Amino acid sequence: MRVNNINYQSIWVDDLGNVKIIDQTLLPFEFKIIKLESLEDVVEAIINMRVRGAPLIGVTAAFGMYLSIKKSNKEEDVIKAKGTLVSTRPTAINLKWAVDSIAEKIIKTKKELRESKALSIAKKMHLDDQKINEMIGNIGAKIIKNIYEEKNKIINILTHCNAGWLATVDWGTATAPIYKARDMGIPIHVWVDETRPRNQGSFLTSWELNNENIENTILVDNAGGHLMQNKQVDLVITGSDRTTYTGDVCNKIGTYLKALAAHDNGIPFYVALPSSTIDWNVSDGNMIKIEERDENEVHYVRGIDDKKTLRDVKVTPDGSKASNYAFDVTPSKYITGLITEFGLLGSNKSEILAIKEKTI
Amino acid sequence: MRVNNINYQSIWVDDLGNVKIIDQTLLPFEFKIIKLESLEDVVEAIINMRVRGAPLIGVTAAFGMYLSIKKSNKEEDVIKAKGTLVSTRPTAINLKWAVDSIAEKIIKTKKELRESKALSIAKKMHLDDQKINEMIGNIGAKIIKNIYEEKNKIINILTHCNAGWLATVDWGTATAPIYKARDMGIPIHVWVDETRPRNQGSFLTSWELNNENIENTILVDNAGGHLMQNKQVDLVITGSDRTTYTGDVCNKIGTYLKALAAHDNGIPFYVALPSSTIDWNVSDGNMIKIEERDENEVHYVRGIDDKKTLRDVKVTPDGSKASNYAFDVTPSKYITGLITEFGLLGSNKSEILAIKEKTI
Repeated sequence: MRVNNINYQSIWVDDLGNVKIIDQTLLPFEFKIIKLESLEDVVEAIINMRVRGAPLIGVTAAFGMYLSIKKSNKEEDVIKAKGTLVSTRPTAINLKWAVDSIAEKIIKTKKELRESKALSIAKKMHLDDQKINEMIGNIGAKIIKNIYEEKNKIINILTHCNAGWLATVDWGTATAPIYKARDMGIPIHVWVDETRPRNQGSFLTSWELNNENIENTILVDNAGGHLMQNKQVDLVITGSDRTTYTGDVCNKIGTYLKALAAHDNGIPFYVALPSSTIDWNVSDGNMIKIEERDENEVHYVRGIDDKKTLRDVKVTPDGSKASNYAFDVTPSKYITGLITEFGLLGSNKSEILAIKEKTI
Repeated sequence: MRVNNINYQSIWVDDLGNVKIIDQTLLPFEFKIIKLESLEDVVEAIINMRVRGAPLIGVTAAFGMYLSIKKSNKEEDVIKAKGTLVSTRPTAINLKWAVDSIAEKIIKTKKELRESKALSIAKKMHLDDQKINEMIGNIGAKIIKNIYEEKNKIINILTHCNAGWLATVDWGTATAPIYKARDMGIPIHVWVDETRPRNQGSFLTSWELNNENIENTILVDNAGGHLMQNKQVDLVITGSDRTTYTGDVCNKIGTYLKALAAHDNGIPFYVALPSSTIDWNVSDGNMIKIEERDENEVHYVRGIDDKKTLRDVKVTPDGSKASNYAFDVTPSKYITGLITEFGLLGSNKSEILAIKEKTI
């Protein structure tokens, strides 16, 4: 999508074969492109959230496998790289799916072909991610169109965190339907949850919507319920970091609270997700291990001062502790539907299992 | 309560007759006492939230009436002062109650006695607020004690915003039961919602609990639902800015989301409130006008940099808009009980109306 009217993706291989990303920890204050030259670079970028978002983490990890194999194509090093990458973000299922899949194929490949094979798999995942998100966009846009045809007014969509193009290679998951609906001429306004503690809503989603000229308003995470009570939200669309085959959605902390409010006010709550986020081994969202991140993410906030200097300021009292769970689980009963590349699914076992064989 | 082991109240008249407050906009970074010398000082302090919290706003406004009457005891100026004070924070009902009550009594008083009468009423409101909160504390502590006797473990209480002693003259509303239960020897840990956009939870509640040596942990507003799903919260206690006589509670934005999560997880959700926050004229919380504050409260965050310099940093992209509703309404059906100075009430019309005559 566009940044200052130039098209970008969130990760790409340039003409010289270098893997490049946008350093998302500096957005929206600075737009900086960095090169990933090794497995260590990739691990650092994922842990420190220079890249984040389940689909993008998966694709970046795939390039991490490639960079590792480029350095050593030994089976033991391939297995080691896989383990290192999986441990960076324990909740993200795409990551595990991507590196498991690469490791399995690489080990079956002749040593001398492993580097090129790893690159071609990573490039295919990169391309597939774009296609999948575009399909999600087309399916989700129909839902928005139906609501627009019924209400015939600007459609207010609330989203949490960033499930935008910055969380994928391109298009986004939750935002793809928004971009596609905009392209169909439907007037849209997006309510952007700030999404503490890392502010991916205000830092990333609002920034990417501004760059695409889509009207949007930032609100604190506390405010969505009030807007829903007052009929200022027509539908909610979020992403998913991991989805059980029974329809529970593990997504950025706070998603559950918005789902409760949508349910309480009869507002449709959709989750847009590539089928790669579905965990076919987990029947109950409460079984998912929830990542706890460094409490300093709560203690410090990044922003710019009046001289436009980037600063991390401490926003808690001396001596106070903080808790920092990164995700929560929204039970399937609060989800209106799952927007996947295979169509709109009910958040239930039978409809989800029906697409299982297509995903393999 | 204590600040560095010295007892303070949030507003007081010193030995020289000066009205003093703690400038709460600087907490927890700086502890600064300021003098209020005129109606204008009081209006500025309320609008800029140097004092905040429904009960404290009411008492401060009472001293504002006194300072205005000290300058001019003419009836027209008394009426004007009342109007000016009411318009500072449209949602807070205590404020209106306090200034209406003073104006009515002052107008009936001989001119030469008006100044001393206004001071004595304000001082009585100041004293009553302490007594009322202590009664709320004793009643709420019994609820905590019952839960402790049943579970026989450290009791985890979640609270939103600051309904602490800083929001009242002393003791607090939501915190009074916590302080009283602590005094009874019950082990307590408090989950403190950060409470964006003004961070009264992390800036004020955590700071005041630290000063009282009560174990507490700050969490982002998004996280409370996850903690409740995982049985890490035994009860929720919040304050109220305005309560309908039918039991709906208008309180800091985000309260509603926590009430939904408590309801969904079978966790008791209590609201601690002086009866002065009850609006006897409003039957439905949706009729309450919700204050919209300056969007810069969302755009900027206050904190200290690595040199301990206080800084306001911008945390939103250039060109992004923000929405800033200050309160939301929690429907009575999600509230387990109202902890008032007249006892624990069900959040329903009959139990609330039963105390009406005691409040006059």
